Amino acid sequence: MKTVALLTDFGTKDGFVGSMKGVILNINPEINIVDISHEVESFDILEGSLIIYATYKYFPKGTIFVSVVDPEVGTERKPIVVKTKDYTFLAPDNGILTLALKDQKVEKIVEIKNEKYILKTDTNTFHGRDIFSPVAAYISKGVDLSEVGPEVEDFIKLNFPTVYKEKDFYVAKIIKFDKFGNAITNIETLPENFEIEYKNFTITKISKNFLEGDKNKPNLIKGSFGFYELFVPKNSFKDKFSAKEMEKIILKIK
Amino acid sequence: MKTVALLTDFGTKDGFVGSMKGVILNINPEINIVDISHEVESFDILEGSLIIYATYKYFPKGTIFVSVVDPEVGTERKPIVVKTKDYTFLAPDNGILTLALKDQKVEKIVEIKNEKYILKTDTNTFHGRDIFSPVAAYISKGVDLSEVGPEVEDFIKLNFPTVYKEKDFYVAKIIKFDKFGNAITNIETLPENFEIEYKNFTITKISKNFLEGDKNKPNLIKGSFGFYELFVPKNSFKDKFSAKEMEKIILKIK
Amino acid sequence: MKTVALLTDFGTKDGFVGSMKGVILNINPEINIVDISHEVESFDILEGSLIIYATYKYFPKGTIFVSVVDPEVGTERKPIVVKTKDYTFLAPDNGILTLALKDQKVEKIVEIKNEKYILKTDTNTFHGRDIFSPVAAYISKGVDLSEVGPEVEDFIKLNFPTVYKEKDFYVAKIIKFDKFGNAITNIETLPENFEIEYKNFTITKISKNFLEGDKNKPNLIKGSFGFYELFVPKNSFKDKFSAKEMEKIILKIK
Repeated sequence: MKTVALLTDFGTKDGFVGSMKGVILNINPEINIVDISHEVESFDILEGSLIIYATYKYFPKGTIFVSVVDPEVGTERKPIVVKTKDYTFLAPDNGILTLALKDQKVEKIVEIKNEKYILKTDTNTFHGRDIFSPVAAYISKGVDLSEVGPEVEDFIKLNFPTVYKEKDFYVAKIIKFDKFGNAITNIETLPENFEIEYKNFTITKISKNFLEGDKNKPNLIKGSFGFYELFVPKNSFKDKFSAKEMEKIILKIK
Repeated sequence: MKTVALLTDFGTKDGFVGSMKGVILNINPEINIVDISHEVESFDILEGSLIIYATYKYFPKGTIFVSVVDPEVGTERKPIVVKTKDYTFLAPDNGILTLALKDQKVEKIVEIKNEKYILKTDTNTFHGRDIFSPVAAYISKGVDLSEVGPEVEDFIKLNFPTVYKEKDFYVAKIIKFDKFGNAITNIETLPENFEIEYKNFTITKISKNFLEGDKNKPNLIKGSFGFYELFVPKNSFKDKFSAKEMEKIILKIK
Repeated sequence: MKTVALLTDFGTKDGFVGSMKGVILNINPEINIVDISHEVESFDILEGSLIIYATYKYFPKGTIFVSVVDPEVGTERKPIVVKTKDYTFLAPDNGILTLALKDQKVEKIVEIKNEKYILKTDTNTFHGRDIFSPVAAYISKGVDLSEVGPEVEDFIKLNFPTVYKEKDFYVAKIIKFDKFGNAITNIETLPENFEIEYKNFTITKISKNFLEGDKNKPNLIKGSFGFYELFVPKNSFKDKFSAKEMEKIILKIK
């Protein structure tokens, strides 16, 4: 069976995701539907982008990803389908696919236009249900991208907060906290002689697990999002250091 | 494969829904189980009713809905199965099916009585697991409603807060907030020359999407629950206007 | 189809569980994946243990349970697989299986060692995804436990807070609150002439359902976790009595 994986900022309380799944199963009842997350902060395209990036590569080849964080739903922003070598991604064209697609060779992008594959409703506020879900289900049944709509050249890129140089040091950032209060930074690789400064602390060591570290200082580890994370053993880094999203971290190379 | 769709106020933390799914798969392992919502406010039959109403019609014909918001579990309230032209609904007979059934032709209602299809346990507090789940699973395998229990005449109707007339205007209400803080009203249709008053604001226009509107005033849109919603672009209406559930809205026809 | 059931403290926001499911479906796409809970308090092995205990027996025989509450991930604690007469349990060897296994005859325990069944990644922080998920999926496809790793003698037992005697009475405890604010105690059985004291109240009666009871006093019922619970009709016991986890309850036998 094929897999459709869903990521949204819809929450799980209101039944929005339930109706998306109803639409999918109505078109293709022989499919695995997996929730990646529906708790993305409302309208937070960066967070959605990070979570797809951290998860998509663990799914079977051929998986169809539906990623709907869509503050501009119903406006001129395009609903698109991106076919890569291994996967198919459906999303509003607002940058949410930026991180996932940086490691995937894009083969084709189309704008969803063919009304044959779209649900007719009297509202214009829920493209997750009315556009992305049915198109994903039809694609899972073999409908070709050329049927879905006209090809487009490119997709919109997110302004991802990358590490940048300032004088003789680099500025990194905390880009997200996970459920445990670990702080995910935007640092993907580190040279051997690094020194990280956060508040009044200096970190020069990479821990091997979440218990290896000082309980009263920030510690560093390579985390499962693919970025380095700041943590405190068996505690919430976020709470302990009153850390904030987009807070700066100084990175020095000795 | 058939679909069983679940709605409860059980939350997702305690494993309640997990054991319901275990019971279902133990009887029918070849089935799609879909969560509509488990975050209905504890005992809030109206909210449960609204969410089933907003979602059920998107599911494949033949879907079996299990809707358990059940403050009176274990008392004399009846567990029922309602067969309509397109679907089967299982629920405590407490009004939760009112909205969903208003658009569905009811063919048969039975009270669940046959102990053959019920789990024997030493507690009387969890009919979602012990009664509704196994009966739903047996029905999905083809057990006829006449096997499940005796026919009953009717089901209990919810006292739904409808729009009512007062002097020369109508009184509508906010009946629920969604995850984004949009206020779902009880207004399903509007005449052309309407005027809505909320706090000191007057609304006379229907927006086409959630960005079309004033950031400092309430705006109106036809939402995916099937009702008109009050919203603020890219913000929470609930927070911005300190709106409350069951708060009144004045509707005038000019 | 076989069932794999998941319990973690990972939350549902960050995509952690999504990537576990991706890994499982990549190895075995013909499988039912069920969430028991992902909202276990971070690192709370006792709560995880209680929830598996309350739910596992409702699943089909042959179900594979993956229970990952794992504060020591990446350290020397062993990842194990426990085969019982009816089920297979995967977990870090930290006591989380204690309650579930007390009623199940253990047939074999192995430590997960064979790298053939483990995901190779550059992080050591997410054994739920890299070790437990792929091994569960391979076992669901028929891989024998002897292939997974060497047999081990025993598993670590949790220090479960049992009821104990003190002078002429017993001391019981509140061990968990459920979503409705009901207080789950560690009392599994009660003699006929019991008397329970909580704060200034005395309880001598067992209610038959959650409506049967005094709205201003603690009431007692046999709950779906398998333990007696303190409750207030249509209200949160936790909130009404400012009850706390591990709070003492006095149990007297007359």
